[in-house]
Parts: sequence; C-alpha cells; structure tokens
Amino acid sequence: MKTRAAVAYEAGKPLVIEDVELDGPKAGEVLVEMKATGVCHTDEFTRSGADPEGLFPVIFGHEGAGVVVDVGPGVTSVAKGDHVILLYTPECRACKSCLSHKTNLCTAIRATQGKGVMPDGTSRFSIGKTKIHHYMGCSTFAQHTVLPEIAVAKVRSDAPFDKICYIGCGVTTGIGAVMYTAKVEPGANVVVFGLGGIGLNVVQGARIAGADKIIGVDLNPARESLARKLGLTHFVNPKNVQGDLVAHLVELTGGGADYSFECVGNVTLMRQALECCHRGWGVSVIIGVAGAGQEISTRPFQLVTGRVWKGTAFGGARGRTDVPKMVDWYMDGKIDIDSLITHKLPLARINESFDLMHEGKSIRTVVEFG
Amino acid sequence: MKTRAAVAYEAGKPLVIEDVELDGPKAGEVLVEMKATGVCHTDEFTRSGADPEGLFPVIFGHEGAGVVVDVGPGVTSVAKGDHVILLYTPECRACKSCLSHKTNLCTAIRATQGKGVMPDGTSRFSIGKTKIHHYMGCSTFAQHTVLPEIAVAKVRSDAPFDKICYIGCGVTTGIGAVMYTAKVEPGANVVVFGLGGIGLNVVQGARIAGADKIIGVDLNPARESLARKLGLTHFVNPKNVQGDLVAHLVELTGGGADYSFECVGNVTLMRQALECCHRGWGVSVIIGVAGAGQEISTRPFQLVTGRVWKGTAFGGARGRTDVPKMVDWYMDGKIDIDSLITHKLPLARINESFDLMHEGKSIRTVVEFG
Repeated sequence: MKTRAAVAYEAGKPLVIEDVELDGPKAGEVLVEMKATGVCHTDEFTRSGADPEGLFPVIFGHEGAGVVVDVGPGVTSVAKGDHVILLYTPECRACKSCLSHKTNLCTAIRATQGKGVMPDGTSRFSIGKTKIHHYMGCSTFAQHTVLPEIAVAKVRSDAPFDKICYIGCGVTTGIGAVMYTAKVEPGANVVVFGLGGIGLNVVQGARIAGADKIIGVDLNPARESLARKLGLTHFVNPKNVQGDLVAHLVELTGGGADYSFECVGNVTLMRQALECCHRGWGVSVIIGVAGAGQEISTRPFQLVTGRVWKGTAFGGARGRTDVPKMVDWYMDGKIDIDSLITHKLPLARINESFDLMHEGKSIRTVVEFG
Repeated sequence: MKTRAAVAYEAGKPLVIEDVELDGPKAGEVLVEMKATGVCHTDEFTRSGADPEGLFPVIFGHEGAGVVVDVGPGVTSVAKGDHVILLYTPECRACKSCLSHKTNLCTAIRATQGKGVMPDGTSRFSIGKTKIHHYMGCSTFAQHTVLPEIAVAKVRSDAPFDKICYIGCGVTTGIGAVMYTAKVEPGANVVVFGLGGIGLNVVQGARIAGADKIIGVDLNPARESLARKLGLTHFVNPKNVQGDLVAHLVELTGGGADYSFECVGNVTLMRQALECCHRGWGVSVIIGVAGAGQEISTRPFQLVTGRVWKGTAFGGARGRTDVPKMVDWYMDGKIDIDSLITHKLPLARINESFDLMHEGKSIRTVVEFG
C-alpha cells in the first residue's frame, strides 16, 4: 500500500513529506493507522546527526497513537479497530528480561530494532527501489506503519489520540521513572534537573507519589510557572545561585535529595544530580541521553557513603501492562497532559516542531494526521 | 590509667609499642579491655600515608573484641563484664540516619570521630603532654580504650575473642554487603573482584544467600583453594583471560552478573564490576576504598540500560543490631572465620602483620593481648 510519511534522507537535513510504499503485516504483526504523534528530543538527536547509531534514509517518530487497521496471521492480543499506543520498548512477556520481573527492557526484538528493520530482517518502507529504515521500531511520522503485536499497547477507545500519543514516550518516561524506577515514597524530597518534556512529567509523578519538596533546576525561567502548576515547590535557576549548586541543593533539601532525576542528557548535571543526594540513601536516576562517547564520573566515596546511581529507559514501564494504566490516569484527571502539549501541527509542517524545540518555546509539539 | 598500645608517630613508619595514659570513661562512655584485634587494610592505608585525612600521632585499629571493665554515668546498654565488639560505625538509634531505616551510617558522633577525638572533643590517649589521636572511633591497637556506649555491640560471652574480633570489620563488611546492601537472592550469579579479607567474606555471604554461580576474580592463584572452600564456584585469573575480562565474565554468567562486588579499591576494577553486570537489573556494589582523589567513570548508557551502581560501608550492617547476629552465625557454624584467620601475633610483633599483608600471605592477622 501507499502511505504518506516524513522521510529523513540525510542527517541534519529537514524531513521531506513523501508518498512511500508500505508492505502489510506478516505473522504476529499489525498495521496501524497513525492518528497523532509527538515529536521528541530523541527524534531530533538522531535527525541532527548526533546519534552515532543513526541510520538513513529513515522515517522517525516513536511517540504515536492510532488504530489497528489490519493484523497478520496469529495475532491474538489486538484486533482491527483497537486503539493503540506504539511501543519502542516492547513487552513480549516471554524473554529472559520480561520473565525476570526485574526490568522492562524486553529483548525479544532488540537486535533487529537497532538495525532499523522488522524482526524478519526486512524494512517494510520503500520508495521505488530505495529501502527506508524503521526508527525505534515505530516510525510514527508515517500515516501507516507496521509493528509486531508485542510493540503495541491496547488502550481504551474514548481517550483522545492527540493527547495520549504523548504517553508513548515523555509522560511514561517521566512518571514511570518516579514510580517504577525510583519508587518515590510520600514525604520524599525530590530534585529534577531539566524542566522539559520529561522533567515536567517527573514533577507531576513526584506530586502524585506524595513528595514533599519538588525542586526543579533549569536555566529557562519561562519553565517555572508551568512546573509549579504540575507540582513544583521550588524553582532553582543555576544562574542565580551564588557558589556551588550542589551545596545549595543539599541545603535546600535539609541534607540532600532523597531522589534526583537528570532529564537533560548532560554528564555534568548527572554528576551534580548524584552528589546532591542525601548521604546514606539518596537515589539518583539518569533519564537523559548523553552525547556519543561521553562519560559520567564521581568519587567512589559518594557511593560508599550510601548514594545509589541508576538509570531508566521508558520509565521502567512495561509497555503493554503499564501504558493502558497511564491512559486511565489521564482520563481520570490524575495526570495532566493537556498543559504540556503546547503546539499542534499537521504532518506537512513537521519540520517546524524542531525549530520550536530549539527555541525552547514548546514543551511538546503533536503532529496530527488528517 | 596506664595501658600498653602500638603508637603510630608518623606516616610510613613502624608502630612503636608504648605505655600510654588513658583517661577513663565519661558520661555515656565505656572502658574496654581489648582481648584481640584484627589488622585490616584500612589501618595500613592510613599508616602508609596514603589516606589524606590521616592524623598522627595515633593509635590505629578498628576490628577489636574485648570486655567492658568500667562504665561512665548514664550508661544503660552495657555493663561491666559484658563481652563487646567495637564499632567504627556506631548505632545511636536516634539520629536522622538511624531513624530513616534506610542506612546504617549513624551520624551521631561522625564529626568528632573524623577528627580523631571523642564526642566531647578531647583525646583520651596521651604520652606526657602529647595527645594521641583515636582512630575510627576505636583504637583497638591498645590494651584498653574508651568508646561511647553506642559504639560497642554486646555479644554472647561464649564466643572466642580471637575469632569474633574479625566480625568488627571484615566479616560483617563482606557478608553484610551481600545480605543488607545487595540483597542477593537464591539462584543469583555473583562476581567478586578481589579475594582478600573482604572478598572471601562476600563469597561466603553469597553461598549463604543461595547464589548459583559465585565467580572470584583475583591475580593471586593462591587464593583459589580457600575461596572454593568458602563457596566459590569459578576462579578467574585476569592474567589467563584472552581478550576482554568484562566480555569473559558476561559470557561466564550467561549474560552478566546479577550482583558484582569490588573488594579491592581499584577504580578500574570498579568500572569492570559495573559493566560485567546484567543489562536490565545487575547491581554492582563498591566495597573497596579508592586512593585519594581517584574517580570512577562509565558511559551513562550502562545505567540507563538498567545496571545499578551502589556502595556500602560496614556492609550496610547496623552495629548493635546486626553484629550480635553475626556472632551467633559463627557459633552456629553458619559462617567460617577460622579458615580466614591465617596468622596470630602478640602486640609486640604487630608490625609483622603489615609485612604479611603486603606479601599476600595473610588473609587476616589477629593480634592478641596477653
């Protein structure tokens, strides 16, 4: 079949809207008609050329919601007409990782996903004789896409696509990091580095978890008011701190953060996030993706005296199990997504979303398919 | 009163056996007659001059057992005649750390302990007009010493001092790291870097916890047989590994260690210990003390993909609560201490213990007081 997609031919160049060929679903796979997709920093990380593992040509996008319009043989968990959120972290419930009950990082299709192809080793997108790579197993910047059934989460049909698409990455990553990875408990003090599309969801996750102080660190003063709406109690602009930022945060938290989150991808901030944690028990969670080859470092004394350094991908959430719960929480008014979707664009104007991101004007831009 | 002690006058010089003056216990303090003390790498770390916070003159030693011979006013938890193990990590049960129930790192007397004095700011040891510092709040290389009552663990009176003194540091640090910090579960695969006085106790802790593979990494082949006796299942000498040690350990564990422990104090090994952990859930625990100013580093991707980096001091054990249990376990035959105490010396020959340590001949040397 033919479908419409934003194609990236080269690193650093704008996406090009094209008609592309899409092969239909094979055994265990589903065809999804995309209704809405968020545009995330990770898409831009690869588009810009900063991602050393980036493959081109490719159709980006990994934060989408849509409707199942066809299924291949043997598909049992979803059916035509089901509303779904696409999962760049699948959940097969059968691999060593899924069965460990200790991680959400399903490995069932990891090898092929990293190569930009489907589990059978083929790409389903093409233009003429040119194969177009899949991206993060999703490629949501296309009006139709194909995925294994283990990579879609069935969700309730009354939830609006243009909001719940954001649950496909940013919302779940931020809230999940608080609930599943850090397991923040009521009364905890929390420090969040970076109040963008992930950090703001960490803030509301911490509020839902009953945290006391929720301290946000960001250089952009425009982020304060929205962050406060979501639950922030203290805003710290490093530009306005006299002396050492870590010492300031330790003082503000009365001895150090119980939990800190790095939501930027900056290795210097990752160190500060660890070192502002409380001696004896502070847990620092890395969410941001650092540049190629960059390393984190600290004195081992920081860990020997009880701080814990960990990280999270997709917020530690199991896609098919936890994503539908996030949708319920949104529909119940427990989590705020509307405030975070600051811009909407049609597919034809998708390149503007990258400009809005760089200008710091958008939290999340959602692209809707007509 | 007068007592006999091994005094360190200068970094790098042998200890000198001297008669020293000891002031008796004040309110909340106890006078302990030492019966036996282990000699630990940490004593040697400071003696050698490598410890930037080392204070001289000083009486070293922090792994001792003895008898309470006098108590100051207000002491309620121990009495004359009680057998005790000395605690460099006290347990006041009243500070923020103790009450957090999240850490064993009691802070009640931390500030003064770090300065080599008692909580009232004075040293109780002197020779003439020269004040002698306390060490790690213990100074077990003296026939008598004074401590706050929160820094002694009362233990059963039928346990031999020359064995249970080792519970004051090495045994508890190793076994505690497995049980309290890592919480190793039955069936786990464990990698231990360094099979010295701490690492061998990690090995037996892992055996008690029901681990499957217990893999030891050490350059000294002489360590293999004793380690196997304590529960080791695989011995890896890095000299005999072709190619990358981390890749070898990942293969040997069928994907990576569930838990790894660094028991040397080498920042390169700390990184290898983290990176040989299983994607998704592997936990690496730093036990060894690195040299001044040294830093650990890794790519944040290691953490984002689910590995956890933590550390432990005194094995995460609460001194007054957990140390008496370790003594019971020894008396019940659950843990082996006898095999690990390879040498015994009288106080007069204490300097030989450092030679045995450097030659790799001893696991633990115990000094007995006549």
